[in-house]
Amino acid sequence: MDFDRIKSRLDALLSAGKKAELRGALNMLNEVDIAEYLETLDNEKMLVVFRLLPKDISAEVFSYMDNDQRTRIMEAMDDSEAIKLIDDMFIDDAVDFLEELPAGVVKRMLQGCDEKKRQLINQFLRYPENSAGSIMTIEYMEFHLGTTVGQAMAEIRRTGVDKETINTLYILDDSRKLLGTVGLRKLLLATDDRVVEDLMNTQVISVHTTDDQEVVADTVRKYDLLSIPVVDHEDRLVGIITVDDIVDVIEEENTEDFEKMAAMLPSDDEYLKTSVFTLAKNRLPWLLILMISATFTGMIITHFETVLSSAAGIGVALTACIPMLMDTGGNCGAQASTLAIRGLALGEIELKDIGKVLWKEVRVALILGVVLALVNFLRIWFFTPYDKTVAFIVSLAMFFTIIIAKSIGCTLPLLAKAIHLDPALMASPIITTLVDAASLTVLFTFASTIMKV
Amino acid sequence: MDFDRIKSRLDALLSAGKKAELRGALNMLNEVDIAEYLETLDNEKMLVVFRLLPKDISAEVFSYMDNDQRTRIMEAMDDSEAIKLIDDMFIDDAVDFLEELPAGVVKRMLQGCDEKKRQLINQFLRYPENSAGSIMTIEYMEFHLGTTVGQAMAEIRRTGVDKETINTLYILDDSRKLLGTVGLRKLLLATDDRVVEDLMNTQVISVHTTDDQEVVADTVRKYDLLSIPVVDHEDRLVGIITVDDIVDVIEEENTEDFEKMAAMLPSDDEYLKTSVFTLAKNRLPWLLILMISATFTGMIITHFETVLSSAAGIGVALTACIPMLMDTGGNCGAQASTLAIRGLALGEIELKDIGKVLWKEVRVALILGVVLALVNFLRIWFFTPYDKTVAFIVSLAMFFTIIIAKSIGCTLPLLAKAIHLDPALMASPIITTLVDAASLTVLFTFASTIMKV
Repeated sequence: MDFDRIKSRLDALLSAGKKAELRGALNMLNEVDIAEYLETLDNEKMLVVFRLLPKDISAEVFSYMDNDQRTRIMEAMDDSEAIKLIDDMFIDDAVDFLEELPAGVVKRMLQGCDEKKRQLINQFLRYPENSAGSIMTIEYMEFHLGTTVGQAMAEIRRTGVDKETINTLYILDDSRKLLGTVGLRKLLLATDDRVVEDLMNTQVISVHTTDDQEVVADTVRKYDLLSIPVVDHEDRLVGIITVDDIVDVIEEENTEDFEKMAAMLPSDDEYLKTSVFTLAKNRLPWLLILMISATFTGMIITHFETVLSSAAGIGVALTACIPMLMDTGGNCGAQASTLAIRGLALGEIELKDIGKVLWKEVRVALILGVVLALVNFLRIWFFTPYDKTVAFIVSLAMFFTIIIAKSIGCTLPLLAKAIHLDPALMASPIITTLVDAASLTVLFTFASTIMKV
Repeated sequence: MDFDRIKSRLDALLSAGKKAELRGALNMLNEVDIAEYLETLDNEKMLVVFRLLPKDISAEVFSYMDNDQRTRIMEAMDDSEAIKLIDDMFIDDAVDFLEELPAGVVKRMLQGCDEKKRQLINQFLRYPENSAGSIMTIEYMEFHLGTTVGQAMAEIRRTGVDKETINTLYILDDSRKLLGTVGLRKLLLATDDRVVEDLMNTQVISVHTTDDQEVVADTVRKYDLLSIPVVDHEDRLVGIITVDDIVDVIEEENTEDFEKMAAMLPSDDEYLKTSVFTLAKNRLPWLLILMISATFTGMIITHFETVLSSAAGIGVALTACIPMLMDTGGNCGAQASTLAIRGLALGEIELKDIGKVLWKEVRVALILGVVLALVNFLRIWFFTPYDKTVAFIVSLAMFFTIIIAKSIGCTLPLLAKAIHLDPALMASPIITTLVDAASLTVLFTFASTIMKV
């Protein structure tokens, strides 16, 4: 059933005031769909429907809402109801939500929570944003050395329902150091009297609390993990991160790269929910920097004024070819830089490959340069009023522009990485500005040399 | 321990011919790292090390290799050894590998496999590339109505070790229609005599065999799933897809978008392993199309020849401003189109939002237009030899260029979606070409009107 039909049925029940039936209907939906439905309602109705949800469902629905919606609900609730809700949430979801609230509200909420939960949340709120610590969860199954399979299974039956995952069980020593993991599958296949350390896999891949979420995502992706343990600086287990949360991290990091590559400051918010001023603020800095950098391109043109104002319309002919030359150069550079940035992000290219990458791009540029210069020569000769000399000058400039563009395009992201800048910044906009200057210099140098003006 | 140290230790054992110790050392490594190590060896050594691996490990290591490496290993093996290897692999990994082999080799391999496996692989090879069917696995746990928890647990203990996941169990009716799922967690908490349908969740989110992998990834991401069932056109369960494979799909789809947005034909291969000719072939079509499109920009300039050749260096002054105007317009358009493309890909923007998006972009453009035009006016006035009239004309053109660029940039991806083209095609390169023409027309129209030439 598609969302519009779901919504119209729920709306009908809601406006008829049939609460019991509405509760029944909501029961048939996935939490994600309920959150989506709530988003379409006004504050008052949203709270009515939200209160109809069973307690465990409402906490999960809440975790799927965006911050706007959450704030709307929290504002409509009184404090005790809000505190109850936070208490029912998984700790990582609660922290995720509290991070977005004003500090005063967080303090009020936490005073209402029980002591243990408050301490935990406070600890989580201290991890740097986007670190492994800030996205981990503490709802995992841990066992100490000497636990038998029978004891472990009993414990899983007793407390497993509240854990984020029971697929992987973590084995600790007395100082909480992570010694190894046991898959639930292995536990199921073993006899009750064996001890967990016999079944333990000691080749554990883990991350540190302070590792960036990008590192976590790369590790999970590389090793095809379903969850990864998070340890502190003394190798003690403090949490785990499950792959479903990693999927969100990956999309977030990709969006960030897309934004940076289009000369914008990255933003965590959904486009339609971001204010016009915030959008403008994120876009202005790079536009300004790039616009002012383009002054140099203007200076190059002014410098070659004599060529432009030379006789017989040659100046206009060259001017008419500038946009094509600049765009082709920019596109060539963007292709090379995009592949370099992407290769770096996926770990397919490393810093030490810079020679290989450059040699590859130069050969690609030679092929593309010959083809494009040739097509361009024929195009100018046959389809424009300009003569063969102009066609030759422009095509020669085109050839060298492509070589320069590809070389700049592929090396800049790698150099950025070398000095610990984000390679994604060295994308189309900056490459285009640099290639513009190069292509104009090449064009006018050839023109003034060949035509001797 | 980092990879270089791992490699030097293994290399030492290998060259000393200490096979037993090497086998022991390999035993300590993750399959992904073993695959990475094998990649650094020549064919002969690679096969020596590969043969040292235990059977189940070697099949998994094989699935983590890239196609180059796999082909190298297969070529070095005789047929019976190769067939044994394919028999040991999970079916989805085997299919993934066979898809890349020449048809003749596939036939020879399959003739050696047992009958049941051959039929299955053949069926998989018939699903369209990148469809849910082609990436699913059939190693899942299924139960029919009436199975008790005790029976189910016994079956999981008996066959669970060969399954891709045992977290979710699938409940089918007699015609293999998918009725619902039971989480292993729920099974563990229930008493042995209950039947599985009592514990069943009937709100199952599934995909069809022919759905594109992008649809699968979007669904898994939206609902935070760890695995998703794949059904045929009669709703019969035919396979499942686990989230670790989805992580790879997401990165693949993102790479495709990055490539399309930089005017390249998408490619599945790693950059460093793609030949120079393939790279050139993927990049040439759009470069040619865009270069030839730029002819129109040239025609616009030629059309306004009189303005360019007008007295007192105004022509050169305007020419000097063309690159800056074009680049700023292109950057503004790219920002808008990137956010629209990304919003569409993540499902944050839909077709019906086109009015909202356009209205938002126009307001952003007004803010940016005023700021940039003002800065530009002051820049030309104070820092160039040109007079206030030129500064005014260029800045006015800048303002309107930004409005046009943002409008084109945000609407084209949505319009592409409307006619079932990939929105990612409507990115920086095409937008830039269109905005170039617009910005030049605006500039020269203002110039000829204001200066009355």
